[in-house]
Amino acid sequence: MPALEEVRRELAAALPAAALIDDHARLRTYECDGLTGYRVVPGLVALPGTHDEVVAAVRSCHRNGVPYVARGAGTGLSGGALPVANGIVIGLSRMRKILEVDTVNETATVEPGVTNLAISQAAAAHGLYYAPDPSSQQVCTIGGNVAENSGGAHCLKYGFTTHHVLAADVVLPDGTAARLGGDARARDDGPDLLGLFIGSEGTLGIATRITVRLLRRPAAVRTLLADFGSVEEAGRAVSGIVAAGIVPAAVEMMDALAMRAAEAATGAGFTLDPARAAAALVVEVDGPPAEVEECFRRIVAVCETNAATRVRVAADPEERARIWRGRKAAFAAMGRISPDYFVQDGVVPRARLAEVLARIAELGEAAGLRVANVFHAGDGNLHPLVLYDASAGQSEAGEELSRRIAELCVELGGSLSGEHGIGADKACSMPRMFSETDLAVMARVRDAVDRDGLCNPGKVLPTPRLCGERIGPYRAHVVEEAGLGERW
Amino acid sequence: MPALEEVRRELAAALPAAALIDDHARLRTYECDGLTGYRVVPGLVALPGTHDEVVAAVRSCHRNGVPYVARGAGTGLSGGALPVANGIVIGLSRMRKILEVDTVNETATVEPGVTNLAISQAAAAHGLYYAPDPSSQQVCTIGGNVAENSGGAHCLKYGFTTHHVLAADVVLPDGTAARLGGDARARDDGPDLLGLFIGSEGTLGIATRITVRLLRRPAAVRTLLADFGSVEEAGRAVSGIVAAGIVPAAVEMMDALAMRAAEAATGAGFTLDPARAAAALVVEVDGPPAEVEECFRRIVAVCETNAATRVRVAADPEERARIWRGRKAAFAAMGRISPDYFVQDGVVPRARLAEVLARIAELGEAAGLRVANVFHAGDGNLHPLVLYDASAGQSEAGEELSRRIAELCVELGGSLSGEHGIGADKACSMPRMFSETDLAVMARVRDAVDRDGLCNPGKVLPTPRLCGERIGPYRAHVVEEAGLGERW
Repeated sequence: MPALEEVRRELAAALPAAALIDDHARLRTYECDGLTGYRVVPGLVALPGTHDEVVAAVRSCHRNGVPYVARGAGTGLSGGALPVANGIVIGLSRMRKILEVDTVNETATVEPGVTNLAISQAAAAHGLYYAPDPSSQQVCTIGGNVAENSGGAHCLKYGFTTHHVLAADVVLPDGTAARLGGDARARDDGPDLLGLFIGSEGTLGIATRITVRLLRRPAAVRTLLADFGSVEEAGRAVSGIVAAGIVPAAVEMMDALAMRAAEAATGAGFTLDPARAAAALVVEVDGPPAEVEECFRRIVAVCETNAATRVRVAADPEERARIWRGRKAAFAAMGRISPDYFVQDGVVPRARLAEVLARIAELGEAAGLRVANVFHAGDGNLHPLVLYDASAGQSEAGEELSRRIAELCVELGGSLSGEHGIGADKACSMPRMFSETDLAVMARVRDAVDRDGLCNPGKVLPTPRLCGERIGPYRAHVVEEAGLGERW
Repeated sequence: MPALEEVRRELAAALPAAALIDDHARLRTYECDGLTGYRVVPGLVALPGTHDEVVAAVRSCHRNGVPYVARGAGTGLSGGALPVANGIVIGLSRMRKILEVDTVNETATVEPGVTNLAISQAAAAHGLYYAPDPSSQQVCTIGGNVAENSGGAHCLKYGFTTHHVLAADVVLPDGTAARLGGDARARDDGPDLLGLFIGSEGTLGIATRITVRLLRRPAAVRTLLADFGSVEEAGRAVSGIVAAGIVPAAVEMMDALAMRAAEAATGAGFTLDPARAAAALVVEVDGPPAEVEECFRRIVAVCETNAATRVRVAADPEERARIWRGRKAAFAAMGRISPDYFVQDGVVPRARLAEVLARIAELGEAAGLRVANVFHAGDGNLHPLVLYDASAGQSEAGEELSRRIAELCVELGGSLSGEHGIGADKACSMPRMFSETDLAVMARVRDAVDRDGLCNPGKVLPTPRLCGERIGPYRAHVVEEAGLGERW
C-alpha cells in the first residue's frame, strides 16, 4: 500500500500526532456510521483541527490517489460516511468552534463539527435558534447535516437544511478552497453551487466553515398528542388539518408498535391499548400567541371530527418535552421490542399515505416480519422500521423488505429518501427512480467537481462494481456514456 | 452559414410553418429582452408548441453545432435571453397550457409559457395561489422565472422561485430529456439537479413542463404606506420591524424620486413633498386574522417610534391594489422623469442598508447623474435606477455608474444580483465576487451538462472573448484550467 503509506507520512508531518489514528482497534470505531449493516475498516483516520489541516489532508490524498470519506458524528442512516478500504476517513469532530452569532443579520457561522443543537444553544440568549431538527440533534454535526440535507420534525413548516444555509467554505476534491453562497439573503448570481453541495453526501468536497440563518424563537408553542382507533382515521385527520389551511410546525404519526417501543424506553405517556390507539399524532403549532390559540383550537376540532379517542394537550413545557422525547427516541427504542431493525426513509405524495401504509402492512405480512411506523405525516415522509432477528437468520429478509418498501414509495410517485440520503445503502436502487439520462447528468456533474473520483467513492450513484447485475440497463449506458467506467 | 441553413431546413420539416420566423423585420422583435441596451438579431426564431418540438429544435441545433437561446416573455432584466448572432431563439410562448391543478397535493403542473399570474388565477377557485410575484407577473412566464430564479416583493416571507418548484421536465443541451425533482415534498435522493437548474439562466437546458407548489391564500392581509423624513429613519423602521420578530409578507422602500415617477404614472397617492417623504415604506402582513391584527398594530407602532410623518393604512382591497400598482410600476414609471434609465439589482446584508444608500448617493453625485431607489428592504435587495439621457451622451457614464453600484454591493459583503440574474449584463463582473476556483467549478459543472457549449453561450460566466482585458487574472487561470478556451 505505498500510496496510503505516503499519505500517512505526509499527514504525520502536517497534523498533530493526536490527530492521526492508525491502530486497528481504534480504526474499528470508524468502520460504520448509523447504518451498522455495512462495515469497512479504513486505512487511516485523520482528525484535522483547522481549515488548513483539512486542505493538507485532501491534498495529500489527491496527490497520492488515495480515496477519502468525510465524517461528522457518524449518525447518518444511509452509510454516507462508510469508509473505503485502504482509504482514509477525515473526521471533523475536532472542528467545533462557534465562530460568530450575528444578531443583526440573524446568522451563525460555525465549524463543521459543531452539533446541530449547540447552534441553537449559542443563539438562545438572543431569542434565536437554528430550525432544522433531526432526531439526533444532540449529537449530529452541522457538517453532516449539510452533507445529507438533513430534515427533522419541524421541517414541515420551516424547510430542510438547504433552506437555512447561507454560505460554506468548502475544500474541493483537488484540495483547492471555494466559497459557496454568501451573507446576502437574496442571491441570483450564477449557478447555485451551494445548493448543489448541500445534500451531495460528501461527494463534492468538505465544508470547513458554515453560515446558517437563525430564526426568532416563536412567541408561543402548543403541542398535542391525539390517539386514533385506526391509521386511516389518523391519516384523515392529517388531511383535514392541511385542508383547513393550517401549517403546523410538525405533524408526526406513530403506530401502535412504535408507541409500545417508545413507551418502554421513555415513559412518555403513550396509550398502549391498540384498540384505542392504533395510531397517534403529535401535532405542534407555533407562532404569535393569537394565531397559535386559533389554529390549535381548529386542530383539536379536526381530530375530534375524525374520531380521535383521546386528545392530550401538553399542559406545560415539561409535558411537551416528554412527548417529543418519546417521538424522537422511537428509532432507538426498537431495541426494546426487537433484537434488530432497519430504519427506512421513503416519501410518498401526501395524498397516498393511507395506500402506502396498507401496502407496507401487506409486504410485512408476506415477509413474516413486523414493521413499525413513525413518520413525518405532513411531508409524506415515512420511516418504516423493519423488525427482524439476525440470530434467527432474518437479516436478508429484513433488508429485502426494507428495500422493497423504498421502491414502493417510488412506484407511488414519491422518493427513495426524504432526509436520510442515498449513501451506500440505496445507490443501487437509484435506477428505479431516475432515468439513464438523469443518472448520466448526475455522474457528469459529479465528475466535473471530483475529477479523480477520490471523494467518497461508492456512494449515491450506482456503478457495475457496486451493484453488479442488479442495476440492469444502467450499466450499458450511463457508465459508458459518461466515460466513467469503474470510476466511483 | 450552412449550419444555420441546415437547422432551418430541418425545423421547417419538424414544426408548423407558423412556428418559424425568419424575415428580418420580425426577427428584430427578438433582438433583446428587458435589458434593451444589448441587441443581437438572431438567425432564426422557432416557436415550438410541444415538448417533442422543443426536442426537435434542440437536437437540430446540437447536430449542426448552432447555438441557441431559450426565451419566455422577454421581460428579463439582465439580458439572459439576448440572442447569439447566427444562432436561433427557441421561444416558449406557444406552450401555455395549464396541465393540472392538484388540490390534494396543492400543486400546479404547467407548460413553460404560462404566465406567473395565470397560475394563481387558475388556482384561485380553490383558495390557492403561486407565491413568487415579480413585478412583471402579468406577462413574465414561469419558464423564465425558473431560468432566472425570479423573486418579487413577497419573497421576503415566502422565498424565491427555487423554493416553490417541485419538478421540471427538461430538454438537456444534447436533446435528451430528463426529469428533475418530483412530486414528493421531502427529497434527499441524490444531487439536487433541480436546484442547480433553477436560476441557471437558460444555460443548462429548457424546461418543458413545470410543477410548482401552491400556497393557501392567507385569510387576512393588511397593507400600509408609511412616509419618513429621511431614508435613514425608514431604514431604522425596517430594522425595528425585524428586531420585533415580525416577518412581514413584504417590506418595500421607495425614495422621493421613485415616488415622484410612480405617482406621475399611476396616481397611487404617494406624498410628493420630499421634506415630509424622503422615503416611504410599503409594509404588508398576511396570515390568520388574529396574527395579522397583532403584527400590524406593532408595525404601526414601530413606524411611529421611528418618526414616520404619515402612516396610511389601506382601507380596502382597492386601496391596497393602488399602493401595489404604484410600487410595481416604479421601474417603467422612470420614463416620466428621465429619457433613459438602467435598473440595477444588487444585494447587501440588511445591516448595511443605510451605508450602501449613502454611498450610492455619493457615486451618483460624482457621476452627475440622478439615482432613484426602489427596493426589497427586508431582503437588502436594492434596485437603484440610474437616470441618464442617451441623447446627451450619458449612456456610458450611466452604465459605468450602474456597474459600480453592483460592485459596491459585492464590496459590502452582498451580491451582484438578488433576483434579475447575471445574464449578459454582469458576466464580466463575476470575478469581483467569485474566486478563480469558484468560477472554474461553475465552468466545469456547466461544461458537464452543456458539453458542446451551444446552450445560451456568452451568459453568466466571463470569458476573454466576452470581457477582453477587463476580466484580468481570470483569463489566465479559469479558462485554461477548465480547458474551455473560448467555449462560451
